[in-house]
Amino acid sequence: MSAHKLCMIPGPVEFDQDVLNAMSTAATSHVSPVFIEKFGSAIELCRDVFMAPSGQPFIVAGSGTLTWDMTAANLVEPGENVLVVNTGVFGDWFGECLEVYGAKVTHVRAPFGDRPSLAQIEEALGQKKYKLVTLTHVDTSTSVFVDIQAAAKMIKEKAPDTLIAVDGVCSVGAEEIRQEEWGIDVVMTASQKALGTPPGLAIMVVSQRAMEVAANRKAEPRTYFGSFKKWLPIMKAYEARKPSYFATPAVQSILALQTSLQQLKDQGMDARFAKHREASKKIKDAVEKWGLKLVPVNREVAANTLSAVYYPEGVKGPELLQKIGAAGIVVAGGLHPRHATEYFRIGHMNVSAVNDSENHHLDKTLAAIEASLKELKYM
Amino acid sequence: MSAHKLCMIPGPVEFDQDVLNAMSTAATSHVSPVFIEKFGSAIELCRDVFMAPSGQPFIVAGSGTLTWDMTAANLVEPGENVLVVNTGVFGDWFGECLEVYGAKVTHVRAPFGDRPSLAQIEEALGQKKYKLVTLTHVDTSTSVFVDIQAAAKMIKEKAPDTLIAVDGVCSVGAEEIRQEEWGIDVVMTASQKALGTPPGLAIMVVSQRAMEVAANRKAEPRTYFGSFKKWLPIMKAYEARKPSYFATPAVQSILALQTSLQQLKDQGMDARFAKHREASKKIKDAVEKWGLKLVPVNREVAANTLSAVYYPEGVKGPELLQKIGAAGIVVAGGLHPRHATEYFRIGHMNVSAVNDSENHHLDKTLAAIEASLKELKYM
Repeated sequence: MSAHKLCMIPGPVEFDQDVLNAMSTAATSHVSPVFIEKFGSAIELCRDVFMAPSGQPFIVAGSGTLTWDMTAANLVEPGENVLVVNTGVFGDWFGECLEVYGAKVTHVRAPFGDRPSLAQIEEALGQKKYKLVTLTHVDTSTSVFVDIQAAAKMIKEKAPDTLIAVDGVCSVGAEEIRQEEWGIDVVMTASQKALGTPPGLAIMVVSQRAMEVAANRKAEPRTYFGSFKKWLPIMKAYEARKPSYFATPAVQSILALQTSLQQLKDQGMDARFAKHREASKKIKDAVEKWGLKLVPVNREVAANTLSAVYYPEGVKGPELLQKIGAAGIVVAGGLHPRHATEYFRIGHMNVSAVNDSENHHLDKTLAAIEASLKELKYM
Repeated sequence: MSAHKLCMIPGPVEFDQDVLNAMSTAATSHVSPVFIEKFGSAIELCRDVFMAPSGQPFIVAGSGTLTWDMTAANLVEPGENVLVVNTGVFGDWFGECLEVYGAKVTHVRAPFGDRPSLAQIEEALGQKKYKLVTLTHVDTSTSVFVDIQAAAKMIKEKAPDTLIAVDGVCSVGAEEIRQEEWGIDVVMTASQKALGTPPGLAIMVVSQRAMEVAANRKAEPRTYFGSFKKWLPIMKAYEARKPSYFATPAVQSILALQTSLQQLKDQGMDARFAKHREASKKIKDAVEKWGLKLVPVNREVAANTLSAVYYPEGVKGPELLQKIGAAGIVVAGGLHPRHATEYFRIGHMNVSAVNDSENHHLDKTLAAIEASLKELKYM
């Protein structure tokens, strides 16, 4: 591999060295006492990180996308209605996934860079009975942030029987989530963003209310690998520090996840949320000071985990990204079918946000962008 | 982690240090040139290792079980017949998975430790029209080996339109497979056995004939994360050394897989098959010399990747496993609902089979078992 460039994209993010070291742990049986202890601990730590003391965690080899399949297959029966609060590409795709499992999907949309208002969601909820509402906490394609606390509160008043699922792939571990207190039934994420572990794990915590819905469904879930019924006994067994087997867990990835989750707990989640808010402000203030424009229409709808920034007039996107890359920093292009060429994305999560005062990832990133903009005669 | 014990179970197996080192590669974008090159190479190398020059590889974050879902969801339509050639627990479970996706499943079974005869399979094929026949090359629960070359030849004569799928989770990379020459449509596996990479990847190679069946199916596949239609453009893009995105690939695991697959190709697959045959003979000869009995009814139906061995009379299974473990070697208990307490399993794959003359994994394993049997007064 060539010299390491700082990976400042909205996932995968930079990882702590202890977490990376756990990835190269020598061969370990998935039913060995040492692994059972770590897997059990990782399951428990999910409850701390998601703030869901009575939730049921699932940790399965896969990507974040698999948690969509698991939500759709286990919690929705064919023909049932689902409302997707859509703030970008990941809303479109989650909707598509839900339809694969037979859901009838309605999207509430907003213009690019904005989010549907609570009133819009409330109005949609009045149209029909929904089994499930999905919200993307942070849509990685647009960096739009949804206030899931306010939305969940309103949904619980307007439609108390409707399950609430949050796609937290680009938020869990960085944006404030108090799953149980806020009454969110499902929070889904992946390992490679603010949970600080290389990609390869699908992670979700499910409320007891939703677990009952899954247990009492009429139609069998249309998935084998993603079946709650298959994985629930496995999660319970490992948590009870007992061996069990359905499909071979990704041993090294889970050892790394446990290492990272323990670090998160030790940092304190509130401290971690604050660090991500600071990092986000630092990046956003800097790019706005240079006269660049953010994709989100205002700071209230902008995520703390990444910044989506329009290319300034006269600057060609590929040239800017190439120059930033040559300066040792990897940022991401746009990801939205109609707007991809208009903006770029800077991820600021995990060690890059939390340990910035030591590792200076944010300063290095800003310096590389500034120097590149100067080279391109923008400033 | 405590002192490393040799992991001599039928997966995960011991890994090469270069492969493990790749697992802890620093954060790397899934669309960076360096990763695109490695992922593209891993896809190409699958064709060498599976001996399927025109096959379509899929490498997806997951476990081997996910390849069952992918085969069932993409290649079988609801209501179609599938014949499962059943040689153990993994046949039972694959059948269950196929039923989740609407297949009508018939099992051809054999007594514990044996395999159905070609005549039995042929007779079953004469009963109805099957969309797919599945064969477990090596059932990890029983160590029973199926002669997939002979079976495929017979199936192609008897039912030329029937697709042939092989569960190669405990065989690919160790047991002889010439996928294309033998006319096998799907070969499924996972990373953590004879492919020599930590667990976390589902890997399969699909014939062009089967890809056409998937492309022309009437019903949409009942999976999103496991959809061939979603993954095919991604695999083609990476192979063409172009970035593409559907779900974040498990970057570190794929870097490790590429390292291992290149090692396999460099070793030569025929040399590797021979080494696994030698390793298997060494283990089986030794345990039989001690008077122990193998689970497979004869050597012809016994796998080269693991040995399933009955506990000798008077020796308690848990005590034997505990003593072997205390001697620094991890072997596995039985895995079969009716017979689990009667036998144990020794894995002999990857570096433990191929580099035995240097690392002496097999000698160390045999020494630990022999010493444990002596301590337990068996000999």
